[in-house]
Amino acid sequence: MPITAIDVHCHIVPGEFPAYAGKADASRWPQMAAGSDCRHKNVMIAGKNFRTVSDECWDVARRIEAMDKMGIARQVLSPMPELLSYWLDPADGLAMSRHVNGTIAQMVALAPKRFAGLAMVPLQDPDIATRELERIMADGHRGVEIGSNVNGVAIGDAKFEGFFAAAEKLGVAVFVHALHPASLERIVGPPRLAPMLAFPNETSFAVASMITGGMLERHPKLKIGFSHGGGTFGFIVHRLTQGWKVSPIIQEQIKTNPLDQARRCYYDTLLFSVDALEFVAKSFGLSQLFIGTDFPFELSEKAPLDALEKLGLGEAERAMLYSGNAERFLA
Amino acid sequence: MPITAIDVHCHIVPGEFPAYAGKADASRWPQMAAGSDCRHKNVMIAGKNFRTVSDECWDVARRIEAMDKMGIARQVLSPMPELLSYWLDPADGLAMSRHVNGTIAQMVALAPKRFAGLAMVPLQDPDIATRELERIMADGHRGVEIGSNVNGVAIGDAKFEGFFAAAEKLGVAVFVHALHPASLERIVGPPRLAPMLAFPNETSFAVASMITGGMLERHPKLKIGFSHGGGTFGFIVHRLTQGWKVSPIIQEQIKTNPLDQARRCYYDTLLFSVDALEFVAKSFGLSQLFIGTDFPFELSEKAPLDALEKLGLGEAERAMLYSGNAERFLA
Repeated sequence: MPITAIDVHCHIVPGEFPAYAGKADASRWPQMAAGSDCRHKNVMIAGKNFRTVSDECWDVARRIEAMDKMGIARQVLSPMPELLSYWLDPADGLAMSRHVNGTIAQMVALAPKRFAGLAMVPLQDPDIATRELERIMADGHRGVEIGSNVNGVAIGDAKFEGFFAAAEKLGVAVFVHALHPASLERIVGPPRLAPMLAFPNETSFAVASMITGGMLERHPKLKIGFSHGGGTFGFIVHRLTQGWKVSPIIQEQIKTNPLDQARRCYYDTLLFSVDALEFVAKSFGLSQLFIGTDFPFELSEKAPLDALEKLGLGEAERAMLYSGNAERFLA
Repeated sequence: MPITAIDVHCHIVPGEFPAYAGKADASRWPQMAAGSDCRHKNVMIAGKNFRTVSDECWDVARRIEAMDKMGIARQVLSPMPELLSYWLDPADGLAMSRHVNGTIAQMVALAPKRFAGLAMVPLQDPDIATRELERIMADGHRGVEIGSNVNGVAIGDAKFEGFFAAAEKLGVAVFVHALHPASLERIVGPPRLAPMLAFPNETSFAVASMITGGMLERHPKLKIGFSHGGGTFGFIVHRLTQGWKVSPIIQEQIKTNPLDQARRCYYDTLLFSVDALEFVAKSFGLSQLFIGTDFPFELSEKAPLDALEKLGLGEAERAMLYSGNAERFLA
């Protein structure tokens, strides 16, 4: 009897965007342009093709077809990260949020047994984002996706205190995805390496900031999960913990062992290596992992269950990894 | 019968620096100031105490005493990374190199069975650095330590082509250490977190640049090793390899599988986690690892052999990890 598999990390793009109706600056407001065939469209941002996307991004039937092939019973839909739009005027960001969140709600309504939704909020204005968070949770979303940083400020910064306090209070699942990484000046070689080389480090800084900024200590009931297995934080946490142990100046501000704090967060399985997944499971605990695929984008896991089956887990552990942990995160 | 252990990653600081004798700018030329007791000194750079260091940095007898306690038969001495001085005028950088390299040569000469040396060269001027590399190898150094970037440019950049070509031709071991990392703006919390949070990512960009910049493909016999287990590259390499597999545009410029390239490099064991070390050994191969401790600094491994013993290795593998791989790297 197969265990139900839930994919917590996969993205949607609406099939269309409304015309810009704001009062600030239309230049970075996304628009859809026709692609090279009827099943693809180009997401145009600031006059450039940001990404060519397939109809799997918005078409529920096409999505379910792919899910059935991959063995995924349920997808937790979240916005393509570039749609988080933190660089727009807050009012425009709110308008984009409502369009994207509405799209997600519609997709979930079309197949509520196959989908659940993570919304977005305009974190460039934490107060607006917090109010919107309270509002949207009434719409049936299971939580929110946020970026690893908001216009260069890591999410553990004190300016997001109110947002995380509200998320904790409401019991909202917060899923963190790498966005606009730093360090791009360190990349040498062909184009398009940033998603491979810089995003995992970016995610690591986001996890670290929640610990070193004291956010997790102040919000012990916050449910927070990180994409791509936490990026490279699986390595960093051990070095951070060692530094914490030997540095009184750091212990003064961070009371709880960083590794113990990290073991309260969730992480997806998207690491493209069974060895990496085993290591992350040892570092953070198997109870903290859920499936993530990055469907339907290029650098996604096409056969997510294959890697998991190689872990040699017992039935109870397998059930946790396939769905139990995700259900706890999203409850 | 115990196997000889070689520590390839440990640093020295000269007991004194000469007065600035250059013609450019004296402000960032290091000077030693007395510490709070006779066994410590402060390395003053630009009028600030960069780091308080102990006499284990320069005193051979004190060093050997510590090595005996740690079970280290031989240390491979390299400069404290901040001494690499890439931000100085090239002539000043060359003068600093000669002072530091002379100190290392003297320390090795005092106990040639307990020490070997890695020199430094002023890579802010790759031509001068290349000529100096050729000169110093006659002084008995086993190789060089270089930074992960030179004034913000990752080492895989084409401007270092001549340097790596010479290193390959001479058979010089090149040991890469994280230096002045990017992404510091992503750190939230108490001071002094950069060595924990940013350095491992920085090292990862350096390894990646040698692969994605084509440097390793152009110099197949180059012997290169990376500090801190390659930083976070153990994770990144799997994602990079996946991206390489699915992206023709990247394969056009990078012909060889990135994981295969990574498995030609060396990495130290300084990860503060047996699980991390096991994972890195699986990723890169046990034949590519050597001991590193960061002795005698704060965030160092005080009992390096304890972690290695937990790996449960057979005698032959243990011999490789303790000394065989280091000897191959330094030969």
